[in-house]
Amino acid sequence: MGKGRLEAFSDGVIAIIITIMVLELKIPVGDKLNSLWPLWPKLLSYILSFVYVAIYWNNHHHMMHAVEKVSGGVLWTNMLLLFWLSLIPFATAWMGENHFTLWPVVVYGFILMLSATSYIILARCLVSLHGKDSVFAKVLGSDYKGKLSVRIYAIAIGLSFIHPMIGFALYALVAAMWFIPDRRFEKKITSQ
Amino acid sequence: MGKGRLEAFSDGVIAIIITIMVLELKIPVGDKLNSLWPLWPKLLSYILSFVYVAIYWNNHHHMMHAVEKVSGGVLWTNMLLLFWLSLIPFATAWMGENHFTLWPVVVYGFILMLSATSYIILARCLVSLHGKDSVFAKVLGSDYKGKLSVRIYAIAIGLSFIHPMIGFALYALVAAMWFIPDRRFEKKITSQ
Amino acid sequence: MGKGRLEAFSDGVIAIIITIMVLELKIPVGDKLNSLWPLWPKLLSYILSFVYVAIYWNNHHHMMHAVEKVSGGVLWTNMLLLFWLSLIPFATAWMGENHFTLWPVVVYGFILMLSATSYIILARCLVSLHGKDSVFAKVLGSDYKGKLSVRIYAIAIGLSFIHPMIGFALYALVAAMWFIPDRRFEKKITSQ
Amino acid sequence: MGKGRLEAFSDGVIAIIITIMVLELKIPVGDKLNSLWPLWPKLLSYILSFVYVAIYWNNHHHMMHAVEKVSGGVLWTNMLLLFWLSLIPFATAWMGENHFTLWPVVVYGFILMLSATSYIILARCLVSLHGKDSVFAKVLGSDYKGKLSVRIYAIAIGLSFIHPMIGFALYALVAAMWFIPDRRFEKKITSQ
Repeated sequence: MGKGRLEAFSDGVIAIIITIMVLELKIPVGDKLNSLWPLWPKLLSYILSFVYVAIYWNNHHHMMHAVEKVSGGVLWTNMLLLFWLSLIPFATAWMGENHFTLWPVVVYGFILMLSATSYIILARCLVSLHGKDSVFAKVLGSDYKGKLSVRIYAIAIGLSFIHPMIGFALYALVAAMWFIPDRRFEKKITSQ
Repeated sequence: MGKGRLEAFSDGVIAIIITIMVLELKIPVGDKLNSLWPLWPKLLSYILSFVYVAIYWNNHHHMMHAVEKVSGGVLWTNMLLLFWLSLIPFATAWMGENHFTLWPVVVYGFILMLSATSYIILARCLVSLHGKDSVFAKVLGSDYKGKLSVRIYAIAIGLSFIHPMIGFALYALVAAMWFIPDRRFEKKITSQ
Repeated sequence: MGKGRLEAFSDGVIAIIITIMVLELKIPVGDKLNSLWPLWPKLLSYILSFVYVAIYWNNHHHMMHAVEKVSGGVLWTNMLLLFWLSLIPFATAWMGENHFTLWPVVVYGFILMLSATSYIILARCLVSLHGKDSVFAKVLGSDYKGKLSVRIYAIAIGLSFIHPMIGFALYALVAAMWFIPDRRFEKKITSQ
Repeated sequence: MGKGRLEAFSDGVIAIIITIMVLELKIPVGDKLNSLWPLWPKLLSYILSFVYVAIYWNNHHHMMHAVEKVSGGVLWTNMLLLFWLSLIPFATAWMGENHFTLWPVVVYGFILMLSATSYIILARCLVSLHGKDSVFAKVLGSDYKGKLSVRIYAIAIGLSFIHPMIGFALYALVAAMWFIPDRRFEKKITSQ
């Protein structure tokens, strides 16, 4: 029950985040095909962010599915994750508006990095609640993909100072890496 | 459980899409009855899009009701469907703002076509998961209505170059065709 | 199951409608107490509409609680109700912006009347599905309050042409009449 | 069932409130790091409000978890709570826009005070429904933290007339006091 409502609330917030981003795709002036052209950076930002928020939902879904209990600490670390995710629409719009210049790309990466870090904290908080020898902890394993993502974000932010598009390409690479949902929790779901 | 949360998330996103479209109905300047008059193209766009999103929700509801299990692939093809649906408010607003001129009508039809295609992919992905001889596959059948819709959208886009209102009329025709919910899954629901 | 998801989707749409209305309460220019003063018509409109949407949620909640099954027709009449409710934020904003002048008050009443009519149609559709001798039909009874509301709205719209504030006062009266949730379905809930 | 849908609707409204606040973080003009600087009052307001709405969700979650039944009165006192919470985005934006000057800080505190008061009324309404000797009433206890919060808000509003930052600091103090979720209901959840 506690777990169910946590999932429902997270689903609600994530569903709103993923949908309000589209409000930043303001309709263009003019009604020609090439009136749409100036929208490409915003559309590209939107696509990357949509994929990222979808990845977070998928992984959150898989992880919470394996969870047996929640605690007050879990509720708050989950809120921390939702807080950083809620800033993605802002960073997406700023990056799209400015055609992927340096600082918007850096800030976008920073928010991705903090979201990923919050997710790791949430996972650790759940492991600590279930015990290191629990089924949950074994299924989660070493969480190397999460840790690797945070490192790639850090590198991407650094390389953005050479050219912001390198940073953007690395963010897209991390998204591609996560595109395949977390196989660790997968088997459980398939059989239901 | 996995299925339940997928339904809940899809419901959330679709509920937000259907509701934020109304934000494009900006309140008119002036407080006379005929101040409302310039809103008619936006209202007409809104009505058609409301019906379309409602149709997707109804059919998604019926299809997921018959589903027994979900997989990572299903989660992602569902996300693809939600992505194209999320662009409907944008296309609706652009079409309403420009009084059904050529390119907005074409782009609107294009997004409808991609939404319908994503829905077909989602259905196929579910058939492949359940097996071709499963109850689900038999209930879904040949999905001729989905395929027919995609073809009519293609024709509608083509005929829009003669007059955009032909395209719009064909979009409305497809909506009318789907207005009656999918009888294939209907019997199951009625008895619950 | 079918009923559960219909409730979930309606809850989502109604939750969004009730919340996006507050976006029309634009923050005032200036930071003095009397900078808030020009907001009073918008705040008053917001309060009435919040109460109305809350009434619809309460009654929808009570009615659906007594429902045993749903059909395709129920899904569509429910969508019709959600459509008219979705126009309430628009009418609220227009009425608040124009300080309760004639046409905005008339249009607001018109949308209330169509929402109430849709609710009656939904109730009839459910009665017809369950049968006239079903528990549901007996619990619903003659629905005189719903029919009375529609009549008061019609009178309110008419009297708005004498003075719009008469119309507004009558809308508030209907809300007050519904403030007490529908006792017909109440007993069932209290015992759960 | 009745309780479940009340939770679902409250979750929806609270999820939307917490997320639409971020729409007030308009993207800055310019793409430099210091273009973000003028956003600090809005970001600070956003963080405090995010924490507050999260606290309400956490406590609502814990309280409703212990609830055994709901009534019409509970539905309406819950709506009253949601009404005041729905005004938090407005007060947050006004306070952030005006850099924590007197009246926006006072109005923000006033809305916090009314939200807290509504929460107390909701708790009392639930106690009265379950009976003073019920498990629910014993678990809730004297609710001293809720009453203390209302008093601190009143003092904070008063001291804002000396300097608004004193008021703001006290609001943050109350949030910190609630940061630890309500231990009264905690034990029940952990074991599920």
